[in-house]
This record gives sequence, C-alpha cells and structure tokens, in this order.
Amino acid sequence: MVGMRGAYGGGGGGYSNGNESRPLEGGGAAAAAAAPMTTEITGMEVHKVAPPPPRSTLSKMKARVKETFFPDDPFRGFKGQPLGTQWLMAVKYLFPILDWVPGYSFSLFKSDLIAGLTIASLAIPQGISYAKLASLPPIIGLYSSFVPPMVYAVLGSSRDLAVGPVSIASLVMGSVLRDAVSPSAEPLLFLQLAFTSTFFAGLVQASLGILRLGFIIDFLSKATLVGFMAGAAIIVSLQQLKALLGIVHFTTEMGIVPVMASVFHHTKEWSWQTILMGVCFLVFLLAARHVSLRWPKLFWVSACAPLASVIISTLLVFLFKAQNHGISIIGQLKCGLNRPSWDKLLFDSTYLGLTMKTGLITGILSLTEGIAVGRTFASLKDYQVDGNKEMMAIGLMNVVGSCTSCYVTTGAFSRSAVNHNAGCKTAMSNVVMALTVMVTLLFLMPLFVYTPNVVLGAIIIAAVIGLIDIPAVYQIWKMDKMDFLVCVCAFAGVIFISVQEGLAIAVGLSVFRVLMQITRPKMMIQGKIKGTDIYRDLYQYKEAQRVPGILILAIEAPINFANSNYLNERIKRWIEEENSMQNKQSELHFVILDLSAVPAIDTSGIAFLIDIKKSIEKRGLELVLVNPTGEVMEKIQRANEAQNQFRSDCLYLTTEEAVASLSTLAKMTKP
Amino acid sequence: MVGMRGAYGGGGGGYSNGNESRPLEGGGAAAAAAAPMTTEITGMEVHKVAPPPPRSTLSKMKARVKETFFPDDPFRGFKGQPLGTQWLMAVKYLFPILDWVPGYSFSLFKSDLIAGLTIASLAIPQGISYAKLASLPPIIGLYSSFVPPMVYAVLGSSRDLAVGPVSIASLVMGSVLRDAVSPSAEPLLFLQLAFTSTFFAGLVQASLGILRLGFIIDFLSKATLVGFMAGAAIIVSLQQLKALLGIVHFTTEMGIVPVMASVFHHTKEWSWQTILMGVCFLVFLLAARHVSLRWPKLFWVSACAPLASVIISTLLVFLFKAQNHGISIIGQLKCGLNRPSWDKLLFDSTYLGLTMKTGLITGILSLTEGIAVGRTFASLKDYQVDGNKEMMAIGLMNVVGSCTSCYVTTGAFSRSAVNHNAGCKTAMSNVVMALTVMVTLLFLMPLFVYTPNVVLGAIIIAAVIGLIDIPAVYQIWKMDKMDFLVCVCAFAGVIFISVQEGLAIAVGLSVFRVLMQITRPKMMIQGKIKGTDIYRDLYQYKEAQRVPGILILAIEAPINFANSNYLNERIKRWIEEENSMQNKQSELHFVILDLSAVPAIDTSGIAFLIDIKKSIEKRGLELVLVNPTGEVMEKIQRANEAQNQFRSDCLYLTTEEAVASLSTLAKMTKP
Repeated sequence: MVGMRGAYGGGGGGYSNGNESRPLEGGGAAAAAAAPMTTEITGMEVHKVAPPPPRSTLSKMKARVKETFFPDDPFRGFKGQPLGTQWLMAVKYLFPILDWVPGYSFSLFKSDLIAGLTIASLAIPQGISYAKLASLPPIIGLYSSFVPPMVYAVLGSSRDLAVGPVSIASLVMGSVLRDAVSPSAEPLLFLQLAFTSTFFAGLVQASLGILRLGFIIDFLSKATLVGFMAGAAIIVSLQQLKALLGIVHFTTEMGIVPVMASVFHHTKEWSWQTILMGVCFLVFLLAARHVSLRWPKLFWVSACAPLASVIISTLLVFLFKAQNHGISIIGQLKCGLNRPSWDKLLFDSTYLGLTMKTGLITGILSLTEGIAVGRTFASLKDYQVDGNKEMMAIGLMNVVGSCTSCYVTTGAFSRSAVNHNAGCKTAMSNVVMALTVMVTLLFLMPLFVYTPNVVLGAIIIAAVIGLIDIPAVYQIWKMDKMDFLVCVCAFAGVIFISVQEGLAIAVGLSVFRVLMQITRPKMMIQGKIKGTDIYRDLYQYKEAQRVPGILILAIEAPINFANSNYLNERIKRWIEEENSMQNKQSELHFVILDLSAVPAIDTSGIAFLIDIKKSIEKRGLELVLVNPTGEVMEKIQRANEAQNQFRSDCLYLTTEEAVASLSTLAKMTKP
Repeated sequence: MVGMRGAYGGGGGGYSNGNESRPLEGGGAAAAAAAPMTTEITGMEVHKVAPPPPRSTLSKMKARVKETFFPDDPFRGFKGQPLGTQWLMAVKYLFPILDWVPGYSFSLFKSDLIAGLTIASLAIPQGISYAKLASLPPIIGLYSSFVPPMVYAVLGSSRDLAVGPVSIASLVMGSVLRDAVSPSAEPLLFLQLAFTSTFFAGLVQASLGILRLGFIIDFLSKATLVGFMAGAAIIVSLQQLKALLGIVHFTTEMGIVPVMASVFHHTKEWSWQTILMGVCFLVFLLAARHVSLRWPKLFWVSACAPLASVIISTLLVFLFKAQNHGISIIGQLKCGLNRPSWDKLLFDSTYLGLTMKTGLITGILSLTEGIAVGRTFASLKDYQVDGNKEMMAIGLMNVVGSCTSCYVTTGAFSRSAVNHNAGCKTAMSNVVMALTVMVTLLFLMPLFVYTPNVVLGAIIIAAVIGLIDIPAVYQIWKMDKMDFLVCVCAFAGVIFISVQEGLAIAVGLSVFRVLMQITRPKMMIQGKIKGTDIYRDLYQYKEAQRVPGILILAIEAPINFANSNYLNERIKRWIEEENSMQNKQSELHFVILDLSAVPAIDTSGIAFLIDIKKSIEKRGLELVLVNPTGEVMEKIQRANEAQNQFRSDCLYLTTEEAVASLSTLAKMTKP
C-alpha cells in the first residue's frame, strides 16, 4: 500500500520515508515558480510545472472579450500610425471601394464589363423567377437586382460576389409570410410585410456584424446546410410543378405530401402545351448546365441559357399566340426604376412578430450564403474577406433595399461562380450588372409581356438542382455518421415538416452533439511505446505497453460541471478494473492523470480533482497530475491556497518524467 | 521559399530534392500502418502515426452508445455467471434491500433505531412546515414522511439518505401551482394538481433513470445550485414573514419586491405577541444550529430543537390561551394514515400542461438534491451509489407517493446529515422514522391543535438559512469569475424574477459558456524548453523558446463546424504576424499543428484542415500535423482516400521528431 504522506494527515505505509526523497517536496506551486526550473533525482532531470505569469482579472477578461469578439483584430494596422492616416484607414475600412477605385484601369474595366454583362443575362430571368417564388410581383426581383448591387459595390470587400435575390431566402420568405397573409387576396399588405421583413433582415445582419456576433452563423454546419439546401431545392422544384403542368388551383402548402396530393388531384388542369414547352426548355437548360460543368471554359453556355430561353419562349408565344392555347404568361410590367418604399414599412404590432421572425430567418440564411460564397472565392484568389465587415455591408444593403422596393438579397453562389469564371476583377461587375438591369427596367419591360410562366419555372428548377449536392452527402456519410444524421434530419425536416423546423432540428442536433462531446469527454489509457519515451493511447498504438504499477489516463476536454461526475465515476471504474487485471506481481501504486489536453476547468472540475485525489488516496494509491496548461495550473494554485491538495510533488511536466520519478521512488522504498 | 512537392502539382523551389530524402514519403497512411513503426533518417529515429484498429460503423456506434448511456457498465458483474446467479443478481439490483437484510444484526439495528428516532423528531415539524410552504394541508407533509421512506428503504441504494419533503421542491411546487389555482379558493383542485404534479415528477425521475439520461441533472452546475439555493432560501424566508409577523392579508407573489411591499403595507396587522414568540423561537433554533455547527458531536441539539420548539410553543399557547391574543394556530388535524389518492390524479387537458411542467421542474430539482446528497455521503463512507438506479428508486417512490396522498419527496441534505451524524447504518433508519411518523399520525395528531404557525415559520427559516452558503460563493468568486456570474444570475433571477426563470437563466448561461469554449477554442504557440526536448506554451513557460523557421501551434478542442472558421482565420493571422516578426535570418518555413489535444473532428473540421494546408502551401510554407488521436487519424485517412492531402510525410508522432526532421530537411536542402 502506498501510504498517505504527512500533509494529508495519514501516516504509515511502505513509502513513508519517500517523503524526504521526493524531488519537488514542500512549498506551494506558487513559491516553486521562483525556484530553478529543474531538480535532479538520482541522476534524472525533473522539470517543474510553471503557472502562467499572473494577470489581473480585468486584463484576463479583456483578453477573453478580445479573443471572442475581435479574433481578427481588425484595427491592428492602425497602431502606431499618425492620426491622419488612421482617419484615412477608417474611411477605407468602411468604404472598401476606396481601396480599388484609385488604381482602377481600363483593362480591369474590360474584364468587369464582360463579367457584368454575363451575370446580368443570368440576373434578369432569375430575378423575375425568384420574385415569383416569394409570391412577389416579378418586377420586385428586377428592382432587387438594381439597387443592392450598387450599394454592395461601395461597401463590400469581396471582388467576386454577384449580388441579387437568391432561391433559398425567396422560398423561406414566401413560405413564412404566406402562412399569415394571402398574396393574392391582400397583395399590398403582403408586399409591405416583405419589405418590412427585408428591413429586419438587414438590421439583423448589420447588428451581427457591428456586435461582432458573426460566429452565430457558424452554427449552421456544412452538414446542416447540405441537407437543408437539398430539401429546399426539392421543395422549390415541387412548387414549380404548378407552372410546369399549367395547374391553376394549386395548394399553398410547401410540404412534399400536400404538393403531390394537389398535383394528382388536379390532373384535369394539366395542359399538354405547357408541359411540352416546359420539358423542352428544362432539357435545354439542364443540357447547358451539363456542358458548363463538363467543360468549365464553356461557363457562358449555362450563364446565357436562361436569357436565351426567355427570349426564344417569348418569341414562340408571340408568334403562335400560345397564350390562347393554355400557356399562362407574365403579362404587362410597368417601365420605370425602383420607387421609394420606406412609407410601406409596416411596424404595426399585429405583424411585428411575423416580420421580425421572417427577417431573422431569411437574414441569417442569406448571410450564411453570402459569407460562405465570399470566403470561398476569397480563398481561391487568396485575398481576405472580413466576415463581420461583410455582414455590415450585406445588412446595410438590405436596409437600403427595403426602402427602395427590394426584397432580401445576398451574394448568390451560382451567379458569383459565373462572375468569377467570366473573369471579374472588382465589384465593378456588380455595377455593370445593375446598369444593365436599369436599362431593362427603363426600356425593355414591355418585351416580357408574352414570357410564359412555364419557362420561369424551368429556370428555377435548373438553378436549384445544383443545390442538391450528392457527392457532398456521400463525403459526409463516409466521413462522419453523426454529421450524416444531422444532414438527413435537416433534409427530411424541410421536405416533410417545414423549412424553419427542419433547420431548427438540424441546428439543435448539431449543438447537442457538441454538448455531448463535453458531457462524455474522450479519455484514454496510455502506454509507453516500446523502445522510446513516448506515451500514447494503448488502443491506437499496438506498440504501446502498460507501465507496471502505474495507470496513465489522459482526458481530452475541458473539465466542468457537465462532465465532472462522469469523469469521477469513470476513473474509479478504471482503477477497479485495473486492480482486478493487474496480477499481484505488479500491484497498482500510482495513477497519472495527463491534463495536457484539458484547456479549461471550472469550480466543479476543481472539486472533482480534489475528490478523485482523496478517493484514490483512500484506496492506498497516489494521484499525480501531468502538464496542466495555463488556466488549469492557475486554478490548481488557487485551490491550493484553500487546501494544499496539489503540492508540487504531484505535478509533473511530462508523463515520461512522472513515470521515471515514480518508478525510482517505488524502487527506493521497496523493503 | 519552400516549394510544393510533386503530388501537389507545384514544382520548383529550393526543397525540390527533399522529395527523395523525406523519411515517410509515399504510400497513404493506411498502407503505412503495416510498415515497421520507425524509420531512421540521418541517425535520428522517426515514429509513425498509427490509425486505431479498424472497426465497423456499427461497433463504433455501439461503443459510443455504451459510453454515453452505460458509462458505469451496470451489468459488468453479470458476465460469466451461471443463469441462476444472474437472476439473483438482477433481483438484488432492483431491490438493494436484499443486499443488507440477510446480514442485518441487532447491533446494526440499535444504531439505526437511534438515528431513525432522531430524524423523526426533525421530520415531523419539518413535514408540517414544508407542506404549508407548498400551500398544502399540514397533514400532507406527515403523510409524505411515512410512505416514501418505506418505499425508499426497499429500492434505494444509499445508506444515509433520509427521505421526506424538502424546502426547495415545496417552494417551487407551491409557487408554480399558485400561479394557476388559488389554494384557498379551490383547495381540492389544488390538492389534485399537487398529487398529479408529484406523479409526473416521479415519472420524469424514473424515466431519466431507465433511459439512462441521468447526466441531464449534471447541467445544474454547482455554481448554479449555490446561487439558486441562496435565492430560494431568501424567498422562502420572506414568505415566512407572514407567519412571523402575524399578517393576515399577505401577497401571493414570491418576488422580493412584492413581498416587502406587502409586509410594509400591512403594518397594522403586525401582532406583537406573534413577533415576540417568533423571535424567541427563531433565536433558540439558530442558537441550536450554531451549537451543532461548532461542536459536531452535539448534532442532536439542532436535530431535536424543532420538535422541542413545537412542544414548548404548543404548551405555551395551550396554557395562556394565546390563540385568543392574535397568535394563529394550526387547528384540528384528523387522525389516521394516508388515504389512497389515485382517484385524485387529474389528467384533464386544462391542467395537463401545468402539472407536467411542475412535475418536470420539481422532479429535476428534487432529483438533483437527492443524488447530490447520496453521492456526498457515499463518498464519505466510501461506497458506490449508482446514479441511474437511485433515480429509478426516487422516481418510483414519488409515483407511489402520488397515489397515497404524498407530494414530492427526496433525500434532504439537512436531514441526511443528521441521519449520518446519528450513526445510521442502513436504510432501516428510514423505516424507523416512518414508523414513528405512523404512530404520530395514528395517535398524536390532536396534540398539534394548539401549535402556533409562527413556530413553523421559525423552523422553516432556521432550516433554509443553511442553504445560503457564503463560503462557497467566496470560493467560486476566487476560483472562476464566470462561474461567479452564473451564480449571481441564478440568485438575482430567483429573487427578482421567479424561481423557474432564475434557474433557466443560470442553466442557459452555463451551457452558453461551454459552447463558447468550443466556438473560441484555446490555442497556443509552443516553444522548446531550453536544454530539453519538451515543447510547451510560450506564454506559460518563460524558459520556452521559439524554434527558428518553425511555428508550432497547438489546438485544444474538438475541431468542428462551430470553430473551423475561427481557427482558419486565427491561424492565418498568426502566420502573418510570425512572418512580420521573424527577421530575415530565420524566415518561416514550416507550420506544425499539434493535434494531441483534439479529441474529435467533423466534416467541417476536415475541410478546415485541407483548406489551411492549401493556403499555407500557397504562401510557400509547409504544414505538418503532430500526433492526431484515434478518431482524428481515422478521419484524416478517409480524407486521404478522396484527395491525398495528408500523406504520411506530413504526420509525426511527436513535436520533437517533427522539429528534428524538418530542421534536418531544411539544412540538407540549403544551397
């Protein structure tokens, strides 16, 4: 039996004379910090565990706040600059356009012009289509492709982002608002609610940026997004069955079950002319998409296909007077630019909850898309995009948009990819796109009269089909089964329950998983790798061998209230098992707890350490801690001030030294 | 510049001939596992990182489920036993009474008898008082001290737990139910709701045990509980001002503000006789408490003081006919044992939500107290208490209680401490207590007619004052400022808002803190400790020195969706800072990422690793991973199957070997 030494009140036992021979005996860890770093025992060096340099609570708080909210240290370039330069930098920080406009050249403009015209040809039909997806008048989609891109060009720091309405946000806004108000019965109220939701979406986005809470969007994990996007794409495509089949009386619900029921309950309304046209253009668009995927240099094929489809189908309808043969058309659209809409913002208490909720969901969803797109292309071209800064830009863009007859916009993935492929150099391509849309709004609107709705449906399907990312799902399945479950839940939730609830379930599951990693932290038994001084997981390394008489445990998680009970019971069980396994020759004497991978500890954690130490000592064993990191060491010191449990003789810097020292001790005290 | 090697498509650079000389080049990590463990390069040994032995998804899932829900492996004793023994063990597992009854002796009984009588003297006055706290008839408190202790004696595995009503659960049940139903206007309905809530509380408790979700109560951290208990003690004490001051028209609200307003609005109702009597007995009880705290051997002083107070005050009222002088008394109580109450359980949909909510909150709160008490004394006497098993016992006890006119009961801390101090040996002391209460119920009820309410108020105050644990608060403040904030929030929430909301705020804050530890994980720059091969945090160890040309980073958290963006940006910033700091002599060439403390990684995490590797290579540097643990190594392997990013030449077992190998490489390839 290993005796408890003097300080613990216990006496006796075979090791009682070990008291004097222990290397780091006496003096709290605090005192030890001043002493020389190493001590020698029987020719072996033993290093001391040092606490981090003392800091006041205030400075620690400051450091933590800084790391939490300003991890990118946005003002680090400001330090040591004269005041004038600082002002200039601040203005440049707020208006990134000032960074590139001074050096702008004609050759850059040529690239941006081509890219801008290309994305305009995509933005015009998509704008009209997505507005219909949100149950808004088609012209709102064009408005939203005019003002927001201009605002973004001034405020945004991404060079590749192509701004405009996107499918997911349109779908969600339409579906949430339709639950409360019918767009056909009360079109003006519906429009007001859409603008107000957009206003709140922008407010949420800008606030996240200003309050530096951008990390909130990180909680939409990749697995969640893949599942959610695929579900949303299917929901969106199903909605297009109305246009593709020419059904007049369609359900207002979104779920897969009511939509399919509605489709097969109205087979009499199916119109063969519409179906024929729809299938032809869908095949054309999908073929164009396939060509561009296969030969990336031909990206312009899929980029121009929607506009080509609109032009061809409009001509066809016009020539054959197809509107009289069961093909529904958009109808008259008024010429003219965005009208101010701030008088349409509705802060009435009846609808405040609804618009705030819609704004929150669409704001976060569109932000996630915009930031992800910005990051992806920034990393491709190797420049930095400041997440919080981007949030402010996108937020402000939507606030301005809500006052100028636009609904939620963000950087769309497909359009930005086209922009990138078309060789855009700066945000000027957004300006070119906006000006093209402006020309369309001013002069070309009458041309859309005969555009058939079925083509818009086909354009939406061809656009969202890319959101179903089967290879990513397969990759997730291969990588991580739990992530796959999250993905499937998001997918099933969206298509069977509702868009919001599917998302909520997936996020809840992701957070629960993170909490479970803390509640049931990973622990391992370590052994010595043969012929080395390296200690590693026995399970992972077959070459690792147990050290007789010593149980080496490593914990890999912060120790806190959520896991201290578990750790306590689990360690006790391991000691029991070890005791029953070890044969009498090598009776268990020491337990080494490797704390290298414990980044933090709270009061419950410290209580656990003290408790496990006492209960290990009650069994006649001895507990030794290895390599507590800064914060943990600090807390251990403070615990020592109250009851001197963890004196420096039970703290070692490396497992190797602990084992060597304990083995020597065991030998020295053997009878 | 460090050139990218062949496999990455890049060419050139000073190191291109390093390709052949690298130790672990070629062959994925999977293939490498079969190769010998070490390779030598220029006289230095380099060890390989091994993946854990391959396991099927199913067996991994099984292992995880086992570790999550059966960490205590409750049936491990069953293995390898004959069927008969297994049955016997199962019965003993369900009825722990069978463990100790066969060996029960007269000497054990003598101890239990004394302990049982002692706690009965405490249980009778406390039972009456706590029932009044829950706005229930006093006799319900005695009923609840009769049946549940008997049930617990059969099912419970703790030897020290003294079962009965407790203050916190009584307070919460009373306050939640009073919000919906007035106990004075509809006494029968109120009673029905109380029994139904008790039924649900028992159901919740038993389910947590059966579903092995016991870890849920761990989310009530010590800091939360300390703050909550102190707040609840103050709320409870304030409620006693009604009895202590003799106020008749008292508020039904619980917050400190309305109660104090009510007290000073009814100064005319204050009765000096009541106040005098209350103050005298309160001083007596507090003095007794003080004596027992000071001299633990005199524990019986505070244990018997409540009963003594009841007897003396009852005699005083009887002799002086004080009920005619403004002192309110309990009044007539019916003799007789518990009547069955299953017909009183109310599953009406009007109140189902209320009773389920009340059951959930009181169930979890009382469970937390019961389990904590059981664990505390088990650890003092060094025996094991199975948490999930205890939950089943407490849950079943409450279900049975709800059918026999009892309300929520659990193991009370103060009473169990008395039980322990009085020398109880087994759960038999609970039986003795129950029998004593039974005798009281059968024959002594008329004696309580003249017991003044003011004494019951004094007993409650003296009992709950111990819940305000100032030293614990001070300890939390010293240990961990964030825990202190949680504690203060729980306290302030309880006394200013409401009991439930205070608890919810504190739990929410604790969980948020855990999530923040993941979202902003700890990272450190490591350096080599002078004269050793040990690498440690530069900030913590002043003796540690940077290795020229190499940046060594250690991450201490699972890498997942919640932190991969942060890690990505933070690491890039560090490399930038390092590049601007390092002088030209020792240009940065390598980045070492120490993954020893990364217990898990998800798909977002793997995407982050691949992304950071690419972006580091773009800067002309090279990324090397050190000691990925089992799960991480497995995922890296799987990522390699798709794109061979992390070949074995960028994986090292220790930082020491990585640094040695990289330095050799740098020297060998220098012009």
